[in-house]
Amino acid sequence: MVSPIDELIQVLRVPPGKKIDLQKDYDPGYTGKFVRKSEAVELLADGVQRLAQLQDKLYAQDNYSLLIVLQALDAAGKDGIIKHVMSGLNPQGVQVHSFKAPSGEELDHDYLWRNFKALPRRGNIGIFNRSYYEEVLVVRVHPTILDNQKLPPSLKDKGIFKRRYEEINNFEKYLVYNGIVVLKFFLNVSKEEQKKRFLDRANQPEKNWKFSAADVHERQHWPAYQAAYQDVLNDTSTKWAPWHVIPADHKWFSRLAVAAIIYETLASLHLGYPTMTDEQHRALLVAKEALQNEDDPQTAV
Amino acid sequence: MVSPIDELIQVLRVPPGKKIDLQKDYDPGYTGKFVRKSEAVELLADGVQRLAQLQDKLYAQDNYSLLIVLQALDAAGKDGIIKHVMSGLNPQGVQVHSFKAPSGEELDHDYLWRNFKALPRRGNIGIFNRSYYEEVLVVRVHPTILDNQKLPPSLKDKGIFKRRYEEINNFEKYLVYNGIVVLKFFLNVSKEEQKKRFLDRANQPEKNWKFSAADVHERQHWPAYQAAYQDVLNDTSTKWAPWHVIPADHKWFSRLAVAAIIYETLASLHLGYPTMTDEQHRALLVAKEALQNEDDPQTAV
Repeated sequence: MVSPIDELIQVLRVPPGKKIDLQKDYDPGYTGKFVRKSEAVELLADGVQRLAQLQDKLYAQDNYSLLIVLQALDAAGKDGIIKHVMSGLNPQGVQVHSFKAPSGEELDHDYLWRNFKALPRRGNIGIFNRSYYEEVLVVRVHPTILDNQKLPPSLKDKGIFKRRYEEINNFEKYLVYNGIVVLKFFLNVSKEEQKKRFLDRANQPEKNWKFSAADVHERQHWPAYQAAYQDVLNDTSTKWAPWHVIPADHKWFSRLAVAAIIYETLASLHLGYPTMTDEQHRALLVAKEALQNEDDPQTAV
Repeated sequence: MVSPIDELIQVLRVPPGKKIDLQKDYDPGYTGKFVRKSEAVELLADGVQRLAQLQDKLYAQDNYSLLIVLQALDAAGKDGIIKHVMSGLNPQGVQVHSFKAPSGEELDHDYLWRNFKALPRRGNIGIFNRSYYEEVLVVRVHPTILDNQKLPPSLKDKGIFKRRYEEINNFEKYLVYNGIVVLKFFLNVSKEEQKKRFLDRANQPEKNWKFSAADVHERQHWPAYQAAYQDVLNDTSTKWAPWHVIPADHKWFSRLAVAAIIYETLASLHLGYPTMTDEQHRALLVAKEALQNEDDPQTAV
């Protein structure tokens, strides 16, 4: 029997090698079998607790790390996912990195450079709030960005984005074979819902700082972004680093879905606390005895 | 009237310019007015929630950052403080940095270099799990470490630690005057309690990986560490970056005390969500109108 979570993952995971149609195949308003928000909120609270237990083992075992890539258009809920799914984890084992427009120093390097630097330590969970995928998304929608990158002009040919998909696939394969598990989430919000959320930001003084005219302007490029995302999903959802299209019109559902997928992925690693070799265990017993007898000057270490 | 938290802070804060006697003045078993652990655990849960609200404003306002320095002997509860006080905060605004023995590249620089690199971003909370203070603690207890540092020999004179206190005071003053609030906590555990916790680690298979013979061996230097800490507290508790001696024999009390001091410090900054100038507000209204009318081709942006 397939568990409800496995079933959900099957629906949301972009099947490697199969062409998807973002608009036809994925409904931003999908909520699976859940009808009530309250039910999802309760499940999420429970899920985060179980996630924290696995994180503790991930950290202690110190073999794997987990890289979570979050991509979405504005107001799709990336920050909320981080806040509501990741609060409750031990911050000692979590690193969030938000990628903004590249700095001068970053532009002086290849596009993966700053991503490499921000990879999670072993035993840790790293979250990329935006990522190297911007190089095949915003850069494709706004070709002038590429014009301003310091790449040799002959390498700015029309094959560049296809090449970048391949480079990214190879980069992620390298990560996975070096113990860095990669999970990718595209938060799929509808144009109508984004408008509602922008208006909400404009209307609530406490949220005003999150709203700008540039956000409104960027909506003009909605179809171009959808096309760019569809190509990314089709060309970079691989067996080793699959994409998940998360329906994002209902925040409570998207949070639960992301938490469930992270949980299942960590659970599949069969994490456990480090065990000792016989020799290490003997050394432990010696140290323990020394500690117990330390007040006795004859046996003190 | 003085609030209970202010009263607690007064007891735990090392008064700048006054000489303290670590052993006589600070009891590791102190629990203030609290007698029941359950009461403290409840208060902590509530405190962490209120802390999360202030963190949200700190992040949005993006003016200040908070640097929390945690120092202690082994098993005093540093990791537990991070886990139990900081879980519940939004990991997007928290960075934890654990300083281990310096790497080759780090030894090729001055001792503050790696600390500078790890400073929290503006709007963020940074936690140093150990810190530059190790340079006047473990380095003082084990002078061979200094022998192996690549400092010009003439600068390894006997004035070096006094000079480092002054350098650290100046460094922290620089941070505070650049918007990085500095809070320092010494978790004060008793030698008996440390022994209990080590034995606990040795006896519980799940905790074995945290226990090593070196930990037991290091206890020989207990008096030297106490003397080094006392000097640090006396020479580097300043008006701008005070030390707090946190009684650490009862984990539930030390967590509550640290949370309370962090909360009070953030509350004293009068944080708030960013407000707009009149001009920014007019721009917001224009953008909002464009958004509302965007389906009308005549007024679309």
